[in-house]
Amino acid sequence: MSIVSSITVSDIRFPTSRELDGSDAMNPDPDYSAAYVRLSCDDDSEGDGFVFTIGRGNEVVVTALQAVEQLLVGRNVGTPHDLAETARALLHDSQLRWLGPEKGVMHMAIGAVLNALWDRQSRVAGLPLWEYLAFLSPEELVDQVDFRYLTDALDREQALDILRAAEPTRRERADHLRTAGYPAYTTSPGWLGYSDEKMVRLAREAVADGYTQIKLKVGADAEDDARRMKLAREAVGPDIRIAIDANQRWDVEDAVGAVKMLAPYDPYWIEEPTSPDDVLAHAAIRRRVSPVKVATGEHAQNRVIFKQLLQAGAIDVLQLDSARVAGVNENIAILLLAKQFGVPVCPHAGGVGLCELVQHLSMFDYVSVSGSMDDRVVEFVDHLHEHFVEPAVVRAGRYVTPTAPGFSARMHDASRERFAYPGGAAWA
Amino acid sequence: MSIVSSITVSDIRFPTSRELDGSDAMNPDPDYSAAYVRLSCDDDSEGDGFVFTIGRGNEVVVTALQAVEQLLVGRNVGTPHDLAETARALLHDSQLRWLGPEKGVMHMAIGAVLNALWDRQSRVAGLPLWEYLAFLSPEELVDQVDFRYLTDALDREQALDILRAAEPTRRERADHLRTAGYPAYTTSPGWLGYSDEKMVRLAREAVADGYTQIKLKVGADAEDDARRMKLAREAVGPDIRIAIDANQRWDVEDAVGAVKMLAPYDPYWIEEPTSPDDVLAHAAIRRRVSPVKVATGEHAQNRVIFKQLLQAGAIDVLQLDSARVAGVNENIAILLLAKQFGVPVCPHAGGVGLCELVQHLSMFDYVSVSGSMDDRVVEFVDHLHEHFVEPAVVRAGRYVTPTAPGFSARMHDASRERFAYPGGAAWA
Repeated sequence: MSIVSSITVSDIRFPTSRELDGSDAMNPDPDYSAAYVRLSCDDDSEGDGFVFTIGRGNEVVVTALQAVEQLLVGRNVGTPHDLAETARALLHDSQLRWLGPEKGVMHMAIGAVLNALWDRQSRVAGLPLWEYLAFLSPEELVDQVDFRYLTDALDREQALDILRAAEPTRRERADHLRTAGYPAYTTSPGWLGYSDEKMVRLAREAVADGYTQIKLKVGADAEDDARRMKLAREAVGPDIRIAIDANQRWDVEDAVGAVKMLAPYDPYWIEEPTSPDDVLAHAAIRRRVSPVKVATGEHAQNRVIFKQLLQAGAIDVLQLDSARVAGVNENIAILLLAKQFGVPVCPHAGGVGLCELVQHLSMFDYVSVSGSMDDRVVEFVDHLHEHFVEPAVVRAGRYVTPTAPGFSARMHDASRERFAYPGGAAWA
Repeated sequence: MSIVSSITVSDIRFPTSRELDGSDAMNPDPDYSAAYVRLSCDDDSEGDGFVFTIGRGNEVVVTALQAVEQLLVGRNVGTPHDLAETARALLHDSQLRWLGPEKGVMHMAIGAVLNALWDRQSRVAGLPLWEYLAFLSPEELVDQVDFRYLTDALDREQALDILRAAEPTRRERADHLRTAGYPAYTTSPGWLGYSDEKMVRLAREAVADGYTQIKLKVGADAEDDARRMKLAREAVGPDIRIAIDANQRWDVEDAVGAVKMLAPYDPYWIEEPTSPDDVLAHAAIRRRVSPVKVATGEHAQNRVIFKQLLQAGAIDVLQLDSARVAGVNENIAILLLAKQFGVPVCPHAGGVGLCELVQHLSMFDYVSVSGSMDDRVVEFVDHLHEHFVEPAVVRAGRYVTPTAPGFSARMHDASRERFAYPGGAAWA
């Protein structure tokens, strides 16, 4: 037994808009922020989680986290089974569900709480989350999945089959992971607000650092995109993959035209070419821009959208996010769906703490679900890691496998105080 | 010029769970609620709007409404053009957009604010909203539409063509509407928590009152559904349409099986058979349950989902909601999409104030978009109208055309005080 005794919620914002870090075609001036939750249990264990936002409205997510409190405090969360039950209790609460259903602010808040529970769970077990998850039994893992709305693509038995097929060789993949790490790519050179010179310099540095893939933001201006893409290709040479990311800027025709215009510079994937809700548009774009791959998912609201993206043949690359859907639980469902359809998962990261979290999910996927690192990379953006107690580490273009217990979710108390909004010293 | 000077926001909740009004397969015990906004301008004009919720979490929407305040206060909202600009400013604010994008709590809050602006606009013009909207120029109407993500199905020129085709005969349809009203159907008999006797009695009363369509909630228990459907069919006879509503309870196979089991009792449509996000599942269900029609939309998050439901041939009946999407603006887009695909719109209503609002949208649609009432009905649920200053009125199964200026959105001050949560007398 381990009973949730309290939660504390804080509004944390970093004034990133001052340097245009994170600027793209849809988000010109983000202040990277986190609605942060720490939950405490009667046995003095704790877990941390957060929703990443880009500034205004972070307080709305704070209120949503507080709305979960009355459903959470007093619950037993001691075992994986208890976590599955808790996820159902929060997600199926009919009154809160109305606010989505299963999307937007309320869903993200529930996701942060579930992530905090998994942080606690793996800390108590003394294992990094990836390893704790990877060696749960197939039944314990499948229990975490809400199969409602999934059974036309994946049912419980099929999910068990996937996990059981991976089970005999989990140990050897975990051993490999500990020495090899997990492939990363970097978005740091490509922010739209950066000058050509800064972009080229950072792109060259990325290659020198061992990355085999970088990403450029596109979509604000076609001429700029072509010039930047040409410069980037010249800077990195023909063998480095360059992904491009339009951050939902286009309709179908615009997307097709823009990708074809950039095709001479060999873009590897086009990310978020249009609305994240638009399964059919992604499918239409994919048919017309092949062999450039189509990638999306960082704004996909839940497993139902991912299921349809896969059913419709709309994506070549699935980009789950650790903090937009309903936490580890829903991401287990999404990893299983991706495996079922044979689509590689290349998670979204960056923001505040997303690299810290999502590395665990891809490592779990490698050990226990897909069993593969082929054509799989986790995004890495090199900022704000200094605020985390166990920051993600990338060396020679690969995430170093975390060894500390937990989900790497804990922020330094000093950072939480300094960047508290609006009262912290950084905002004074 | 008319400048927004302030907004006031309140948390209003009605303890409806005490009588199981509104109970269905997903929502066993709702407390019908409203996150309510009143905005005031420097010329002393006012407008009211609200988000309907079912209890817990209403405070999250209140916070979201407050988050819009800084973007709204000081804006000029004097003309339809100003409203179009304001909609874009709120919806495209990059930091707030991250919280959806265009879905869930933040989107609903922006919708309520836009509805309040239209309430103000039509009040100042001295016209009920339906009539104010109906006689705007095609250009003014099309300006309200955000065509981003729509152009693969409907572009600006096509939208103008629709509105221009209806323009010459708008006057005669408006005249007809004033005398004939607009067809309604009633859900009042069919709540899942009602006894068989109460359901049968209310179904008979509905027919006696002039309704030609009623609706039953289904989806919790197959045997109950069959018994209730049989009783309802016997009570109303063969000529009254009986819609059934599963409130998202099923996966594809469950839905097909359940509808086929109820087919002997001739259900007219199956509403929300599965997840509102699942375009492909609705399309699959529709192919297999025909001639029973498939209806959905009350939880569809935005125009992009409606576009896909239409593109995929997933629905026979489009059920827009007045207070879930981005207000009048996005609903104009949705009405135009429905017309483009030739699908009738039968809006969702009930809740708190949804009948009051949505009647205006269907009446506008009849006069200026679809030009038809064929197979179109607006839901009516007979509760909580007494709290509104200009309550919706249904006589002989038809909505009586509103004549008072505005969007019928204003709640009595006494109701707002009594049901304020948690401080109001009703909650003491």
